[in-house]
Amino acid sequence: MAVGLNPPAKLAPVQGIELGIAEAGIRYSNRADLVVLSLCEGSTCAAVFTKNKCCAAPVTLARDHLAAASVRALVINSGNANAVTGETGMRNAEQSCAMVAQAMGVDASQVLPFSTGVIGEQLNMSAMTSGIPQAVANLDVDNWLSAAEALMTTDTIAKAVSTTVTLAGKPVTITGMAKGSGMICPNMATMLAYVATDAALPQALLQECLHRGVDDSFNRITVDGDTSTNDALVLMATGKSGFELKDLESEVGQQFYNALERVLVELATAIVRDAEGATKFVRIDVRHAERVDDAKAIAFSIAHSPLVKTALFASDPNWGRILMALGKADVSALEMSRVNIQIGDVALIVKGEPATTYHEALGKQVFSQAEIGITIDLGLGAASFHVWTSDLSHDYVSINADYRS
Amino acid sequence: MAVGLNPPAKLAPVQGIELGIAEAGIRYSNRADLVVLSLCEGSTCAAVFTKNKCCAAPVTLARDHLAAASVRALVINSGNANAVTGETGMRNAEQSCAMVAQAMGVDASQVLPFSTGVIGEQLNMSAMTSGIPQAVANLDVDNWLSAAEALMTTDTIAKAVSTTVTLAGKPVTITGMAKGSGMICPNMATMLAYVATDAALPQALLQECLHRGVDDSFNRITVDGDTSTNDALVLMATGKSGFELKDLESEVGQQFYNALERVLVELATAIVRDAEGATKFVRIDVRHAERVDDAKAIAFSIAHSPLVKTALFASDPNWGRILMALGKADVSALEMSRVNIQIGDVALIVKGEPATTYHEALGKQVFSQAEIGITIDLGLGAASFHVWTSDLSHDYVSINADYRS
Repeated sequence: MAVGLNPPAKLAPVQGIELGIAEAGIRYSNRADLVVLSLCEGSTCAAVFTKNKCCAAPVTLARDHLAAASVRALVINSGNANAVTGETGMRNAEQSCAMVAQAMGVDASQVLPFSTGVIGEQLNMSAMTSGIPQAVANLDVDNWLSAAEALMTTDTIAKAVSTTVTLAGKPVTITGMAKGSGMICPNMATMLAYVATDAALPQALLQECLHRGVDDSFNRITVDGDTSTNDALVLMATGKSGFELKDLESEVGQQFYNALERVLVELATAIVRDAEGATKFVRIDVRHAERVDDAKAIAFSIAHSPLVKTALFASDPNWGRILMALGKADVSALEMSRVNIQIGDVALIVKGEPATTYHEALGKQVFSQAEIGITIDLGLGAASFHVWTSDLSHDYVSINADYRS
Repeated sequence: MAVGLNPPAKLAPVQGIELGIAEAGIRYSNRADLVVLSLCEGSTCAAVFTKNKCCAAPVTLARDHLAAASVRALVINSGNANAVTGETGMRNAEQSCAMVAQAMGVDASQVLPFSTGVIGEQLNMSAMTSGIPQAVANLDVDNWLSAAEALMTTDTIAKAVSTTVTLAGKPVTITGMAKGSGMICPNMATMLAYVATDAALPQALLQECLHRGVDDSFNRITVDGDTSTNDALVLMATGKSGFELKDLESEVGQQFYNALERVLVELATAIVRDAEGATKFVRIDVRHAERVDDAKAIAFSIAHSPLVKTALFASDPNWGRILMALGKADVSALEMSRVNIQIGDVALIVKGEPATTYHEALGKQVFSQAEIGITIDLGLGAASFHVWTSDLSHDYVSINADYRS
């Protein structure tokens, strides 16, 4: 199913980070569904959370704990989102943190909880109670892949990536994992993702890296325009490599950021490649806009259009729908007579009119590919934006009409 | 296919309005695809058009003609949208008006052109040239139903409605027709619709009726969130009934407006009932919001969510998705602890938490019906808004993946 996406290659451990996994039986039996991640003392941690106003209990609690204490552990379950679960849901999230804290000998406020799965049902606390000690018991630096598998819900493939770069003569590793394939429209991270490095970064710099990184990756993907109640992206730095980053604008700072961005983009696009029912992986570039917000509005208007997405599914270069979606974006500066559009390498619209060189067979050839680029040049200014998205297929409907059954 | 929608009942003619139909062969042969509508001298006419920035040549021209002259005729074709067709497209729209003007003995500036169908292809002018005189030759007051049929593209059923009310002792008729079932998200009228009355209304009052009426009807429907390049709604008043409306706030004014609103709501909801692939007809009411815009943002967030729409298709009361869509609407005033939600007559959420009386079988019963009401009470203020929408089915994907083939 996933478009051009292979199982994760060998993942490099991040010194200072250990992961433990359990088959807790939260929703289904005989599958890993619980992860405990431990951070060594002295690590820094930054996170972004869903902007959905109806956010889940663990999101609220994780936000509070992150602000209050130095983070020493994460506890993550799949199968249940613990969202719209009221006071009981909050108590269950608190109790999960307390159980991890007890098993690890840290304070409950140093544990961040995360949940993903069905909304509106209470978390199975007997599963958590038996699963947490099991997960803590098998904490290991080499468990990234098993952890990525334990996070999966409608994902068809585990998503994780590693990179190692040499910074100031020291090898620095960044490894991350993510889950998500539906309810994907970023407004901060829109799924669960955990990225760790053995570089040392002070809290403020880590936060800056995270915000820049999210803007360049997870905030540029959409599957269905729906924003989940539970999304979170956590970035952790253990310092165990001996490399300490002090300034993001320095040469090593830029090298570090580029490596981090590669990891984040690879995880974010992996989610789109594994989007529910996806048969196409599409990048939409909007260039020469007056303002970034204009470019963004147009890119997402096209990426969210069900009519564009069904045309992509059909490999049908029904490009009028791209124009429709361009025009419906509320961008007052738009002047059709300045617009150029390319699909793949094929010129489609030149100065607002169909290119004289365009013919259907050329468009069909581009739209038949599994990976498609659409470039809109507004001819107005210097701002640009791009998004990655997927098509809308019968399988998207099947997956989402059948998900709970 | 269409949900709870029957073929139009007997349509009352509107004195002063005649309609002529032709099988012009614009895209397909052996089907009516061209309508000419004539208005008697002294009629008034008001219209709203798509806000899509990439609007079609006929939209631009109709807007100009409406501003310049008293309208005496409309020419409407299906099968081709004459959108993104550049200068040639504009010349073709002008020529179509000129041909109608010549056949009817009026000025070309008194003719409004409308097109619906595929975007980005030039209009078949030889079909228009042979079709227009044919349509003018069979102008008749009784042709509303045939005209509604000629407008259809992916519609499965013709949409038209009549009402007759007695105002100041005089019978006043309002008859309208509409087409549309996909690329439906209102920002003004989002399709083609033509409504006429034999009441007399001065231009300013007609315009006021139109704007109020559109806000209460076509601006409250969505199928797929996509706004077409060609949408238009035209309201015409011939004055032939002898009843003249002078004040919308008077008692007869309100009676007239109520009758007009009924016609507009019936046409607008007919489009949703006949939405591409629809198996469900859904009304979403948001009540007790602080501001109408907040209620509207939430109503459309739910109505546009592919995850809510696929759950509706599956008759699966996966109500977490409703909460997700509520929360992702950008409404800062939202306080989950004040929110009550009902589906049909069943309480789902009470003060932000699942109702203790709710159980799955109750939800399943509501979601299995063909017509579903979802009511969100925000518990904040006095503003409200409602929208009508449809579900997202396999047939929606099939129709839009196959439409051009």
